[in-house]
Amino acid sequence: MENTQVQALLEEMTIEEKIGQLGQLSADFFPNGQATITGPMQAQHMDLDTLYRSGSVLGISGAKQVRAIQADFLAHNRLHIPLLFMADVVHGYKTIFPIPLGMAASFDPEIVKNASAVAASESAAGGIHVTFAPMVDLVRDPRWGRVMESTGEDTYLNTVLAAASVQGFQGEDPLDEEHIAACVKHFAAYGAPEAGREYNTVDISEWRFREQYLPSYAAAIKAQALLVMTSFNTLFGVPATANQHLMRDILREELDFSGVLISDWDAIGELINHGVAGDLDHASDLALKAGVDIDMMSFAYSRYLKRAATLDAETKRLIDESVLRILELKNTLGLFEDPYRNISIERETATELSPAHLVDAQHAAEESIVLLKNAGQILPLQPGTSVFLTGPLSESNDLLGSWSWQGKSTPDNTIAAALGQRCEVKSVPDVGYHALNEKQLKVALGGAHHYDTVIACLGIPSSESGEATSMTDIRLPEEQMTLLRALAADGKRIISIVIAGRPLDLSEVDAVSDAVVFGWFPGSRGAEAIARILTGEVEPSGRLPMSFPRSVGQVPIYYNQYNTGRPLTHTPNDAENKYLSKYIDEENTPLYPFGYGLGYAQVTLQSLTIENTEMSSQKPMVAHVRLENSSNRDGRAVVQLYLHQKIGETVRPVKRLIAFEKVAVGAGETADLLFSVTEDSLRYMHTDLTNTADAGEYELLAGLSSDATQAVGFTFTNGLKEKSDD
Amino acid sequence: MENTQVQALLEEMTIEEKIGQLGQLSADFFPNGQATITGPMQAQHMDLDTLYRSGSVLGISGAKQVRAIQADFLAHNRLHIPLLFMADVVHGYKTIFPIPLGMAASFDPEIVKNASAVAASESAAGGIHVTFAPMVDLVRDPRWGRVMESTGEDTYLNTVLAAASVQGFQGEDPLDEEHIAACVKHFAAYGAPEAGREYNTVDISEWRFREQYLPSYAAAIKAQALLVMTSFNTLFGVPATANQHLMRDILREELDFSGVLISDWDAIGELINHGVAGDLDHASDLALKAGVDIDMMSFAYSRYLKRAATLDAETKRLIDESVLRILELKNTLGLFEDPYRNISIERETATELSPAHLVDAQHAAEESIVLLKNAGQILPLQPGTSVFLTGPLSESNDLLGSWSWQGKSTPDNTIAAALGQRCEVKSVPDVGYHALNEKQLKVALGGAHHYDTVIACLGIPSSESGEATSMTDIRLPEEQMTLLRALAADGKRIISIVIAGRPLDLSEVDAVSDAVVFGWFPGSRGAEAIARILTGEVEPSGRLPMSFPRSVGQVPIYYNQYNTGRPLTHTPNDAENKYLSKYIDEENTPLYPFGYGLGYAQVTLQSLTIENTEMSSQKPMVAHVRLENSSNRDGRAVVQLYLHQKIGETVRPVKRLIAFEKVAVGAGETADLLFSVTEDSLRYMHTDLTNTADAGEYELLAGLSSDATQAVGFTFTNGLKEKSDD
Repeated sequence: MENTQVQALLEEMTIEEKIGQLGQLSADFFPNGQATITGPMQAQHMDLDTLYRSGSVLGISGAKQVRAIQADFLAHNRLHIPLLFMADVVHGYKTIFPIPLGMAASFDPEIVKNASAVAASESAAGGIHVTFAPMVDLVRDPRWGRVMESTGEDTYLNTVLAAASVQGFQGEDPLDEEHIAACVKHFAAYGAPEAGREYNTVDISEWRFREQYLPSYAAAIKAQALLVMTSFNTLFGVPATANQHLMRDILREELDFSGVLISDWDAIGELINHGVAGDLDHASDLALKAGVDIDMMSFAYSRYLKRAATLDAETKRLIDESVLRILELKNTLGLFEDPYRNISIERETATELSPAHLVDAQHAAEESIVLLKNAGQILPLQPGTSVFLTGPLSESNDLLGSWSWQGKSTPDNTIAAALGQRCEVKSVPDVGYHALNEKQLKVALGGAHHYDTVIACLGIPSSESGEATSMTDIRLPEEQMTLLRALAADGKRIISIVIAGRPLDLSEVDAVSDAVVFGWFPGSRGAEAIARILTGEVEPSGRLPMSFPRSVGQVPIYYNQYNTGRPLTHTPNDAENKYLSKYIDEENTPLYPFGYGLGYAQVTLQSLTIENTEMSSQKPMVAHVRLENSSNRDGRAVVQLYLHQKIGETVRPVKRLIAFEKVAVGAGETADLLFSVTEDSLRYMHTDLTNTADAGEYELLAGLSSDATQAVGFTFTNGLKEKSDD
Repeated sequence: MENTQVQALLEEMTIEEKIGQLGQLSADFFPNGQATITGPMQAQHMDLDTLYRSGSVLGISGAKQVRAIQADFLAHNRLHIPLLFMADVVHGYKTIFPIPLGMAASFDPEIVKNASAVAASESAAGGIHVTFAPMVDLVRDPRWGRVMESTGEDTYLNTVLAAASVQGFQGEDPLDEEHIAACVKHFAAYGAPEAGREYNTVDISEWRFREQYLPSYAAAIKAQALLVMTSFNTLFGVPATANQHLMRDILREELDFSGVLISDWDAIGELINHGVAGDLDHASDLALKAGVDIDMMSFAYSRYLKRAATLDAETKRLIDESVLRILELKNTLGLFEDPYRNISIERETATELSPAHLVDAQHAAEESIVLLKNAGQILPLQPGTSVFLTGPLSESNDLLGSWSWQGKSTPDNTIAAALGQRCEVKSVPDVGYHALNEKQLKVALGGAHHYDTVIACLGIPSSESGEATSMTDIRLPEEQMTLLRALAADGKRIISIVIAGRPLDLSEVDAVSDAVVFGWFPGSRGAEAIARILTGEVEPSGRLPMSFPRSVGQVPIYYNQYNTGRPLTHTPNDAENKYLSKYIDEENTPLYPFGYGLGYAQVTLQSLTIENTEMSSQKPMVAHVRLENSSNRDGRAVVQLYLHQKIGETVRPVKRLIAFEKVAVGAGETADLLFSVTEDSLRYMHTDLTNTADAGEYELLAGLSSDATQAVGFTFTNGLKEKSDD
């Protein structure tokens, strides 16, 4: 449909039809493939006529069902405007990839892009048009359960993976049948709730917001994400969903976002709880003024129906604006040409959980798993090793993680099953996540000494990960620690595998284990991936996208902190000088830093050199990194390039990631990498909220972890100040 | 001296003399009562000529010594401009009152005012002109050790006590010989370091800064505080000491502060560590531009000496501006008329630790101690009770707390000694704060069963409280908990007395103790005050100025949180509905809330009534609160009046303190209180950063703790919208 036709369609619409487009309903309104009004809906003053004027639904999928609902809907909708079907397709649809925080650990945008592409392909066949993903919220507090859906603590990593995910979901422009529209969320700063408590107030300065939080949303929008979702939280004193400065000034004007802005579930209605709206009418006015196009399940915009006859010109203009954006999205998706776009029972059958997709999911898991400790190179397991396996996750297939509503974990997706295909395994699973009695303990310990190796499969269930699972205690449950301590007291060397959706305080796990493997929720083929890592069939190459604290008392802790006036000097003076920025009872450093992760091969960063000690807008800095693998195993490494600006107008991070690359280094070989650093990497947020680069001195740092870097200095002469020399 | 004379003096000064005024030196430069240059000073390029041009010193006191230094100084200073003597006189000089956080628990501005007045009187006699107090930084993180020097988590309590303290130090205008100048600190928001780590970055939105943090500084300045100190931290991306928006726009322009702005120790030099200055010259330029008048010990401003011949007009103008402010302060203090102002060996001898001052200090302690638990009314101790006393604080006189450099705790200032004068006490002190061996444990437990009552004197030493004592674990040391558990296992009823400078996680202490008394650091007469509370000679009347978390994982936790979109409803629905702002492993509530504290008498809030359900700018709300004492003991209570605005332009706190009053209620009696609520109490920070009140609906809440309040609704019709009806 031409744009002029979309505009013409808008003009044909009654005010009731327009208001209908603004509302999004849940699956409850469409049982058995047909629009239906039952008791609870009547409470929302919904009737069938209204229902058939709706613009979109969420949480419905499956080719057959979607086709039936769409057909019924179109038969009743006067102008035959198709319904939009949206859903949470986050880290897979049927084929489940690792949770996003796990995929971030791959440090490989291709992994993330492909995971989104596979999810798009499967869900498109299942009738879904829009996914509520990616979530690109920067997170530095592991108490917040939804951190599993993020890509961690770093702005740059977030921006790269945000763009990759959007590209994966949406493919090339225009959207083809293998792809769906992406909805970047949650705008904005949802990942910084105070005290890590879900839905709590967020408060950061606008300067910091723009420097650290905004770039990932901006990257997704630059990658053409077609939708944006508002966040539940307050920012700068006003809930995001009613925040005109955030939505009008920043999102629409500065980021030039012209797509659809949708509220999170009931977020318009919750403006009443937030205490900025007196009732739903008031709430709808606030959200509409902020430019929110779609009301997800709060029935606030539908209140305009009652006021339809008396709406003022400005409100009508805002409604038209939003409806036009929604129609344009439907047009972009091709729904006017084919309301059954993509729906294909054949393709659904062929793609969902296809062998190729499962291979991709397994590969993503293999790239995501992080080896945190490996004392005495107890890993990889030697051929013929006998293994005593225990802990709540030894025979559990709770490996998919939150947001895998359409995923099914097969019975063989357990560590015991996967490892059992490779070595002699005695599995003693009879302990729970939160339960351990004397008898269970005795059984769990019973046979350990007959086996070469003890593997404790520990973790947090998926029900305690994801949205609305904030925790004040981020250690493993005491029952699991009791088991682990007992195993350690028995004198066996222990390999701990930890499955969880957030950074944990693993201080004691680290202390009593010889090896620690962090598996995140690894997805449909996660157990196989873990087994392959344990046996060394795959080289561990996951690196942490978040710092793991020594205890919850260090939170928030992250690598790219700003300079303080009294920093540690990392000399003996630190201990002698009381008046430094430190704790008296704990190190400043995390247990495991950002970017950290071990391999089995011995890959080291041999050198960092630069071609030019002076760079400018015209002349990028060219840096060379040489890696060396001194072992007789093929290795993997994530080369991380960091920047430190010596003097800024505002305080600058001690270092910040500006580039990374995951590389293979063959046994006994070296590998050379070349990075080109441009002015873009030097830009930062100034006090006047402009994003520019300063002329001056910088350090380029390279390392295989954020805490172990080599540095080299250079100077930037910006374009304006630099005399022309080319 | 007339103002014109001060101006004339300025004009007489050479540029070197002006620059000299800007520098503040430590006591190290004046050993043995005379300006001296030793080796380390030469490293700072200081010579005697420069020294004799200095403007002020810090940390020197004592009538004799100050007089000698001043005399020597004046003999060498060309224009005979007297030195200013400054020092940290925080919660007492020789006579030590409870730490500020403790005095805040008195909920009595007269206590704070008098403590400051006593400290001013003693230190003035000792030659001090300026104290670096009060610290009015709002704090919500008990990991930060310097919380002991604050008055806690609440904006309103902070403002009231900030003004009271300034009035106490400075007395009436003009300053008389009993008073000294106050320097409010630390501007601004020093109390909110990230992760509770001392000197760490502070980041809050300007909206929240103005709503919650700024008012206490503003109150101190309104109360005529003559100086302001810059904070160490970064705010809005720029270290406070170089922050022109903070210092020029907000402090000088908006708050109309015309007094002296002094840096914290080396804070100008630390602009280099912060990474916003390349060297000391650069740092001095940044600070001078921000309007910092005095450079405390970073020798940055003294660098202007080298550049004196080439200074530009603007720099010279800024220097003149700062020197004038310093000279005006000296003039306000009367130093030009009498450079030996206040110094009096006789008065020093007569006032320091005078019986009257000690009585005041004891009274302040009695008003500050908080009774947190009293199961089965185990307290007060019955006459004739025999007491088994143990724990590291049973015979310790470490009761003064940080910032009591001139205070001396007498050997009899111990709980054992004070209680021993009242009952039979067996004291078994042989356990340390962090040390407990088997033998000690055995001894500590040994005789307990021969005594009626076991009192465990627990706590944190003063060396682990105050500046630069950030902690990640806010529980009592494990050794003390081992002792406490062992005592509890013995079956005795236990009274725990806790001495500490910050809110602690007392969850386990509460669980195993029958009574818990929180003593803060109670000062020179603290032990006597504790004994009188224990025996019931004094009714406990301290109430918490900060929430005590259940664990560090709840931090920050405070009562006046903003509304969220998914609040707890405090109905059974809370447990059923996963999607609320809560933790899955812990309550949202603290262990002990703000405003909480028990008494021995049974005082309850019987009713809250209002005279008018409608108020306006012209017509205040008049509220009546009736208290009832149903017991046969005279009681005390802190009536707390809170406000909740139902709908705001920005999110509003669930409640916020707007008034309080500490009252006595006789045995079996009732007491009536009247509060008048004006428009001022309704004002809040809007998105345009104006502080105004909205017409609309409000709730007035009254209670004896923040978590137990009665509410009544009213309407505010603001002046502009209200029709005239009087």
